[in-house]
Amino acid sequence: MSNLDSVYSKLTIKTGAKLALVVLDGLGDIATAAQGNLTPLEAAYTPNLDALVRSGCAQGRMIPVAPGITPGSGPGHLALFGYDPLEFEVGRGVIEALGLGFELKAGDVAARANFCTLNAEGIVTDRRAGRIATEVCERLCGLLSAQIKKIGTTQVQVIPGKEHRFVVIFRGAGLEGPLTDTDPNREGLPIAESKPLDAKNAKQKKMAKLIADFYAVALPILAQESPANGFLMRGIAHQPEIPTFEERYQLKPAALAVYPMYKGLAQLVGMNKIEGPQTIAEQFERYIREYENYDFFFIHFKYTDKAGEDGNFKAKVKAIEEFDAALPILLARQPDVLAITGDHSTPCAMKGHSWHPQPVLLHSNASGTDKLERFTETGANLGSLGIFEAKYLIRLMQAHGRMFDKFGA
Amino acid sequence: MSNLDSVYSKLTIKTGAKLALVVLDGLGDIATAAQGNLTPLEAAYTPNLDALVRSGCAQGRMIPVAPGITPGSGPGHLALFGYDPLEFEVGRGVIEALGLGFELKAGDVAARANFCTLNAEGIVTDRRAGRIATEVCERLCGLLSAQIKKIGTTQVQVIPGKEHRFVVIFRGAGLEGPLTDTDPNREGLPIAESKPLDAKNAKQKKMAKLIADFYAVALPILAQESPANGFLMRGIAHQPEIPTFEERYQLKPAALAVYPMYKGLAQLVGMNKIEGPQTIAEQFERYIREYENYDFFFIHFKYTDKAGEDGNFKAKVKAIEEFDAALPILLARQPDVLAITGDHSTPCAMKGHSWHPQPVLLHSNASGTDKLERFTETGANLGSLGIFEAKYLIRLMQAHGRMFDKFGA
Repeated sequence: MSNLDSVYSKLTIKTGAKLALVVLDGLGDIATAAQGNLTPLEAAYTPNLDALVRSGCAQGRMIPVAPGITPGSGPGHLALFGYDPLEFEVGRGVIEALGLGFELKAGDVAARANFCTLNAEGIVTDRRAGRIATEVCERLCGLLSAQIKKIGTTQVQVIPGKEHRFVVIFRGAGLEGPLTDTDPNREGLPIAESKPLDAKNAKQKKMAKLIADFYAVALPILAQESPANGFLMRGIAHQPEIPTFEERYQLKPAALAVYPMYKGLAQLVGMNKIEGPQTIAEQFERYIREYENYDFFFIHFKYTDKAGEDGNFKAKVKAIEEFDAALPILLARQPDVLAITGDHSTPCAMKGHSWHPQPVLLHSNASGTDKLERFTETGANLGSLGIFEAKYLIRLMQAHGRMFDKFGA
Repeated sequence: MSNLDSVYSKLTIKTGAKLALVVLDGLGDIATAAQGNLTPLEAAYTPNLDALVRSGCAQGRMIPVAPGITPGSGPGHLALFGYDPLEFEVGRGVIEALGLGFELKAGDVAARANFCTLNAEGIVTDRRAGRIATEVCERLCGLLSAQIKKIGTTQVQVIPGKEHRFVVIFRGAGLEGPLTDTDPNREGLPIAESKPLDAKNAKQKKMAKLIADFYAVALPILAQESPANGFLMRGIAHQPEIPTFEERYQLKPAALAVYPMYKGLAQLVGMNKIEGPQTIAEQFERYIREYENYDFFFIHFKYTDKAGEDGNFKAKVKAIEEFDAALPILLARQPDVLAITGDHSTPCAMKGHSWHPQPVLLHSNASGTDKLERFTETGANLGSLGIFEAKYLIRLMQAHGRMFDKFGA
């Protein structure tokens, strides 16, 4: 925990304030000539958001990790949850497992894996085994699962993903990552040996031995398969100990997310997952029903990011309008502090995540008004919050919930 | 001293530039619907400030300590004086003593104290002794002062505050805080023992013994009093060694403040206190007369904060207008660098200090113009200084005074 975190901790008081963080995934965008020099937020018809802004909001933009750094969903959300994504690094195996809906526990070691093709000499001839169909992947993972339940006292789970991808979870005492990859990163080489990153770390050494043992039992099971007669492992790391959201902020948190990845990220910091709602309207309705049961609500909306990834400007506009249409459900019982933002930008023109600071809106009885008419990237540039690191959003939300004592006399 | 401070130090050159920092205490505010969506700065008639802005100023907003953290006057001013308030923490006893006008020396240990009521078993039955009148407090402090001048070789001073509050100063060799409070924090418990925060620190142990000895002689003096027959101590800490303003910035500083607290904070960093002026007009007049004698002027105006604390929007507007009316006195002899800002925000709607970044204006022949017409929070959002930590203001002022060599070739 950084010194500043411990200062925040000391100042924190429980006030019973209700805080809601609505994340429109990949919300931020850039205005290009091809899109009429408008961003999706600017092009969308958002009467409810506009009314909220005019009722008094502070706006700004947030740097998800550091200038120029494009985050994945993991670091993007960890920052929104107030955890410095450079301090709390989560391995790709862990993120992948969370994305597949697997409930990891602290200490579990997870690895991303790919099926690959080996020749008779054990040389990798295709690192992705010709991108086998997802059904084949599921069958092969079924084979491995059925025959490998444990290695020694360590439980092993093999979870299929899409195409050639899968995840392996090791659950047992005294395991730790990170280890080096077994993926040689190019064809023409044998499967690499996984080694401890810290040669003196006994837990990593134990884990490296487990990887070797896993290969020893798994490869014979696949030997007669074609083209997927081998596999490569990457991002072998344990789920880090992360201080829970509740102990860190003195807020009882709930997550209203539809996709497994975001439920998993919320669970990683100890949020309670509320299952059921499938649309943003249903999520907001559920928020109303759960209002008394929690202090903090993380509400995740995926479709802005999806449209951005597809480069589909119209779909992103439509997703924003769908969110706007549902917004009055949430506003029927306003939280004391409401933040609406993204976990990063996903500009349509780039068809992927980017580093552009995402716009953020903060509404409370201490937000005042920035005298803006709408919530847009260009407007947010003029807002009173300025440009700040996303990890501070939760601190501002706590401040607006009057959750901090004065610092010094 | 941080690495960056030492970089600044190495680059610093004496140029004879005159710098003036005018602090309108608690200046920053928020625009709420109840106030016509205007802040006091926006509502005030400020022709002189407006003319200054149009003559060329850079504007921005400053984070007093860290995002979301509301500072007391101590950290707020330390930041303005260029000392990181998270690095240079000043105990509440020290701040209180400064506020009462006591001239602390480095190494003095100060404690805030409250008179309280004890029952026959020594249990605290009223932590504030029914908020006794200030005159009673003065009489009791007089009794203690008269009978306790020294404990061993350590000098003791007891200084009355308002109602049940007072301050005790210990001056002697080898003393150090911080210690734990003797205040049990609720009624129904006995006076707590004050303990070293660092059990291995011999100076703290010596100090804890002194506190116990002080109680041993002081309690019998109060035993027959009612309701104030006891007292509780908090924030027991020594005045930290702070590098002086003059050695740190190569500027000979003067403080023109009316209230003891701000004189005390200026003195804490080694500023020369100029006594006499009671109004902002008199402070500016004195600045003119002292112009040749100092390089840096800290001019403090209290009434913006007072009005904010009272939630009195009209009074805050009037305080700003009073400052504006006096401004031409200062401008008759413009400093090379003039900064006008607050030490924090005190929004009328919140009736207290807040974390909202305060607006800042910088005027020099290197400030250029931000093409703004007035000095307001909303305008400052658009300024060329952006939002930055208050501890850097003094560095910007030095830069505008051409006090830094080029860094690197």
